[in-house]
Amino acid sequence: MQKVTIGFLGCGNIGSGVWKLISDFRYEFAHRHQLEITVKKILVRDVTKPRGFSLPEGVLTDRAEDVLEDSEIQIVMEFLGGEYPATSYILQALHNGKTVVTANKVALALHWHELQAEAVRQQVGLYYEASVCGAIPVIDVLQHSLGANRIDKLYGIINGTTNYILSRMAETGLPYEQVLQEAQQLGLAEPDPASDVEGLDAAYKLSIMASLAFHGRVTFPKVYREGITRVTDQDIAFGREMGLVLKLLAIAKRTGNQVEVRVHPTFLPKSHPLARVDGSFNAVYLHGHACQEMMLQGRGAGDMPTASALVSDLIRAATASVHQHPTFRNTEQPDPSLDFSQNWVTRYYLRLSCSDSVGVLARVSDCFAKENISIATMVQKDTGMPGRVTIVLTTHAAPELALQHAIHALDTQICRVESVIRVEE
Amino acid sequence: MQKVTIGFLGCGNIGSGVWKLISDFRYEFAHRHQLEITVKKILVRDVTKPRGFSLPEGVLTDRAEDVLEDSEIQIVMEFLGGEYPATSYILQALHNGKTVVTANKVALALHWHELQAEAVRQQVGLYYEASVCGAIPVIDVLQHSLGANRIDKLYGIINGTTNYILSRMAETGLPYEQVLQEAQQLGLAEPDPASDVEGLDAAYKLSIMASLAFHGRVTFPKVYREGITRVTDQDIAFGREMGLVLKLLAIAKRTGNQVEVRVHPTFLPKSHPLARVDGSFNAVYLHGHACQEMMLQGRGAGDMPTASALVSDLIRAATASVHQHPTFRNTEQPDPSLDFSQNWVTRYYLRLSCSDSVGVLARVSDCFAKENISIATMVQKDTGMPGRVTIVLTTHAAPELALQHAIHALDTQICRVESVIRVEE
Repeated sequence: MQKVTIGFLGCGNIGSGVWKLISDFRYEFAHRHQLEITVKKILVRDVTKPRGFSLPEGVLTDRAEDVLEDSEIQIVMEFLGGEYPATSYILQALHNGKTVVTANKVALALHWHELQAEAVRQQVGLYYEASVCGAIPVIDVLQHSLGANRIDKLYGIINGTTNYILSRMAETGLPYEQVLQEAQQLGLAEPDPASDVEGLDAAYKLSIMASLAFHGRVTFPKVYREGITRVTDQDIAFGREMGLVLKLLAIAKRTGNQVEVRVHPTFLPKSHPLARVDGSFNAVYLHGHACQEMMLQGRGAGDMPTASALVSDLIRAATASVHQHPTFRNTEQPDPSLDFSQNWVTRYYLRLSCSDSVGVLARVSDCFAKENISIATMVQKDTGMPGRVTIVLTTHAAPELALQHAIHALDTQICRVESVIRVEE
Repeated sequence: MQKVTIGFLGCGNIGSGVWKLISDFRYEFAHRHQLEITVKKILVRDVTKPRGFSLPEGVLTDRAEDVLEDSEIQIVMEFLGGEYPATSYILQALHNGKTVVTANKVALALHWHELQAEAVRQQVGLYYEASVCGAIPVIDVLQHSLGANRIDKLYGIINGTTNYILSRMAETGLPYEQVLQEAQQLGLAEPDPASDVEGLDAAYKLSIMASLAFHGRVTFPKVYREGITRVTDQDIAFGREMGLVLKLLAIAKRTGNQVEVRVHPTFLPKSHPLARVDGSFNAVYLHGHACQEMMLQGRGAGDMPTASALVSDLIRAATASVHQHPTFRNTEQPDPSLDFSQNWVTRYYLRLSCSDSVGVLARVSDCFAKENISIATMVQKDTGMPGRVTIVLTTHAAPELALQHAIHALDTQICRVESVIRVEE
């Protein structure tokens, strides 16, 4: 029997889930893996706070060094979240020769190069399956199971909060603010929802996934990002009439060395496998040159699904003879061999508010024609407001810059652009 | 740069795909993994047969020992398929100290214990991701990514041929025989389709997946099996009216030590994620106590998707410092701690052909009531045949044995059972 002593950094929902899963899995650790896991120290802010489960005397501590400096602790599991102090703690643990298992997407997205360099230097492991999409093993699949692929496309629904909000808006027809409030009351959105609804959370995760998929560092600032705060129930309804479903999509595409990495509200045809991923589910859909299409779907958040990834990583960490690391050049800067483009080619949905006068449609069409953008559908809607009409149009595939030019060329006196939503297939 | 010399057993569609993928991936092998892969020998039946791609002089051989006995060859990739001689070749390669990467579900399902024992004895690797569901990494996910889970339910659509046939039948309303012929003409079904349509292929794969999921050997004969040869377009149409979709489902369930492992035509509600997996796609849907629901979907067959799994395994095999093996007790006999039941509890769909006489419905209902089986829906259809009616009924959840008793108790003079199809949720 191999004895493994571990420490936790944090003991909120996820830490509690990990504690429960480890406690509950003693028999399996012993009989499947000949492992005996002892949690020696758990760093918390307040050692007196009731935890809802019993911990042995002396396990809780509010001193980080009790975990980071204890020479008996071989593996540190981190679920504090956020950039600091988590990043410093992880670095220190690695520096002290401890393998780290983390769920921290922010630390990884922003400091991966430092963390990996330190882990390599100390010949210890760094495991982070839980940092992206909870229980869904997208890290391992990208890194190993699809090792013989050039991945040219990855689409993800990787933020449960925004997917819940958009699904609920589609289901109920209610406006964004009201559904957000409902999600906050249900505990599905944070009191300060910015990280989710502004697309930050998805962008952190996408920078990690895209780095593995493209085998080169895709840094967080390289991810183009728009959140869902300006999404209207009206656009969702108009989209539905055209057979489109709105998702906050994380997109990574590669053509040769040109890559595009972006998070924004996106219409998908309702026949797309991702269009049916509703509520708090996560899913990643990808295409590789050998594997072709693949989709992984599951619980992307929640204490037990995240604990599933963390404890599975713990088993790997404890049973590995040599710790493996991604083989791409993991640097602070974006990989120089990747050419990051913001002039992607996609289809667009636009909602325009126009004055109801002769020749407006022709002038709108003209602006797009001048940029060589072909209009796929155009519908004029009655607004109920005298003198104004709503025009909903979709384009064929067009470059982003051309689209932006066309929009800026529209005469704001007669035509206001209310929404621009990209349409993927 | 690490030089790895490998040999192939077989060079049909899959072998050709692997050759192409390896040739095409030289740059990535070198730059990502510092590997230089040389294919030294390829065993084929006929060395003179044109292959559609050029091979270096002297690589093809019709003598197995040129691969198995060559001391330079470190890794043997096997895609002969079938039980023999593949199993003997794999054993011999392992015995000679070579790591084996295989796509052979039959060899694995029937001889896993021998193969693993020999690999452990010789301290070499045995890799078989490609044996189940092509590119979909279900082996690795069950073995590692869900390592901290007790998996209690696994549903798979794991045979593309039957899924194509059932999808086409549902789409066109055509009868089984005609759709089978069409599939054969398109190369989607073998000239002798028995292995697919009788459920053998799915049962081999399920025995492998269930062993990993339940962490105990589930041998092939323990898999209950019914094929799709008796499926009628009529049942598919009646099912559709009730919101049900017919799939050849591979099912593994566990409650405590009691397990059920079965492959048979199954109705699923159309809202189930698997109900939308059409055509030649494969998918595995599972539930674990920590990860909760998860689904993996992709290309389960085809030369490049299978090559994706084989070459990804090749990279693992070539870069592993120690080869890992499943940690369950891998024996010839079913795991004694698993209690295999054929008296599962599920819902049923039945189509009965009855004489159109007073009291028939009451007598049918009575047979089910005597076995304590509760009827959920019952519809009488006009057959157009004077004196006969068709009764379509579904039951609430009931034990298999009770259902069989009820069926046998029906008076065959007045009522013939035309179809019995299990309904899962």
